[in-house]
Amino acid sequence: MTFKVTILGSSAALPVRGRHHSAHALNVHEQFYLVDCGEGTQTRLGECGINPMRLNAVFITHLHGDHLYGLFPLISTLSLLGRKTPLELFAPAPLGELLESMYVMLGDTPAFEVHFHPVDTRQNMMIYENKVMEVWTVPLRHRVPAAGYIFREKRPPRNVRKDMIDSYGLDISQIVAVKRGEDLVLDDGRTIPNDQLSYIPYEPRSYAYCSDTMASGKVASLVEGVDLLYHEATFAAADKALASQTGHSTTVQAAEVARKAGAKRLLIGHFSGRYKDTGELVSEARAVFPDTEEATEGSTFEIAPKRNL
Amino acid sequence: MTFKVTILGSSAALPVRGRHHSAHALNVHEQFYLVDCGEGTQTRLGECGINPMRLNAVFITHLHGDHLYGLFPLISTLSLLGRKTPLELFAPAPLGELLESMYVMLGDTPAFEVHFHPVDTRQNMMIYENKVMEVWTVPLRHRVPAAGYIFREKRPPRNVRKDMIDSYGLDISQIVAVKRGEDLVLDDGRTIPNDQLSYIPYEPRSYAYCSDTMASGKVASLVEGVDLLYHEATFAAADKALASQTGHSTTVQAAEVARKAGAKRLLIGHFSGRYKDTGELVSEARAVFPDTEEATEGSTFEIAPKRNL
Repeated sequence: MTFKVTILGSSAALPVRGRHHSAHALNVHEQFYLVDCGEGTQTRLGECGINPMRLNAVFITHLHGDHLYGLFPLISTLSLLGRKTPLELFAPAPLGELLESMYVMLGDTPAFEVHFHPVDTRQNMMIYENKVMEVWTVPLRHRVPAAGYIFREKRPPRNVRKDMIDSYGLDISQIVAVKRGEDLVLDDGRTIPNDQLSYIPYEPRSYAYCSDTMASGKVASLVEGVDLLYHEATFAAADKALASQTGHSTTVQAAEVARKAGAKRLLIGHFSGRYKDTGELVSEARAVFPDTEEATEGSTFEIAPKRNL
Repeated sequence: MTFKVTILGSSAALPVRGRHHSAHALNVHEQFYLVDCGEGTQTRLGECGINPMRLNAVFITHLHGDHLYGLFPLISTLSLLGRKTPLELFAPAPLGELLESMYVMLGDTPAFEVHFHPVDTRQNMMIYENKVMEVWTVPLRHRVPAAGYIFREKRPPRNVRKDMIDSYGLDISQIVAVKRGEDLVLDDGRTIPNDQLSYIPYEPRSYAYCSDTMASGKVASLVEGVDLLYHEATFAAADKALASQTGHSTTVQAAEVARKAGAKRLLIGHFSGRYKDTGELVSEARAVFPDTEEATEGSTFEIAPKRNL
């Protein structure tokens, strides 16, 4: 039931010693996903003990190099490693064309399929789904078309209460029916409502990645109630004008989005290299939203299941 | 009078922990050049204390990703850093098209000019020249068109011997004439030949980069007498068949090229990740060519001037 995020890279576009360009690795029930893929992501995956062969899908937020230049070498490596499983790739449309051109010009078509899915960055829509999770786009406000992503765990299957199995002497077919959500009809004609017999074992979890973007109330409403919100905070509160000019957010703005959204926890990163003391940036955000942490390279943030019984 | 090479990355295509994809930085008289530009090169430059803004030219040997995927992010960073000076870029022709497509598709044209020079990988010709150095192509034998590069320092200006200045009481205009290579005509009609009056202060130095390639006698003849030869040695001697199949060289083959060429010193690298003990690879080469060293990340190989007086 894992649900955790590992920060592979958290710096803004200008390289900073010891930091890396944007990339987060998400593990949902031991299935792996990548959000953004800055230069060096394949190396970072290795350093963080994540096997790149296990990636199911990559989600790119926007077409700035610091969010995608690690993708080409990652695909090359997967091909060299003999990957056969297709890789799902979500990004604004021009990246698909660029990959095609690159394959042709470098004569280097990967040995596995890359299923490219163009992302409409203006829509809030579900773009990916599997048994345990959905991924939705979150329109962002940046200098170029950009989409954030929200990963929502599906409601887990109901558990049947052990005491009820004993009380009513349920057989296998009855247990299966209760698990499906059906009420129980007893031999004497009484009906026991399903919610007395079963429960959702834990609340579905969620993680949103919003970078690069100006802070926006719309983003806050789309990520409402999220368990873990990664929101960029390129600038300190004092540099609000600069944030606005460049299509980025300040620490305080990121914290305000988290507060408005009723997020459980906020992660900030994508700090401009101009700030030597990132602790100061975190303090600024915490003044508005106390449960804020810094997205530091290699750190992992787990969302533990909130159990109902 | 610096002439030195710093190894930024030396691994073959499949990433190896602690190694990086191909890139060498060359410093000739405090002018900087890059040969190949694997992923992470800009980070490696920073780690090795080389300012990427000071790069004059980049030479790409061939269009395999592990030799070039660091170029796009490097160009982005130079642009962000406000570079105005054009960058000279030498590579097989399709890379120029690819860069143009990328600028268009990502909407990210650099703020400085990248002067792209398509390299004819079948020719041995001078492609770059400045006051102190020439760069020549060396046709390589790989699975795709590939060129090595040889960097040849020009003969330095003649120094006038101090004892001769005193003996003949040379004035400024006579010294300048002797420095130009002219003989000295004395008042009594005698002619003193220039080589008695002046000397070449040190021998011109050279460095060749030959990767990726099968070992070849032609390469050996083109790099004849080179001071420092970097030659790939992807495979151990026992894996000769594999080297041949994949268009690479073994340690022993690289050493044989160095011996045939009469190189002063051999650097080997681009080792396949399958070899855990690279010391063993170096030993194999040394058995054939004793002055062999391993191209390890971050190490610098200086060619000291061989002084004539």
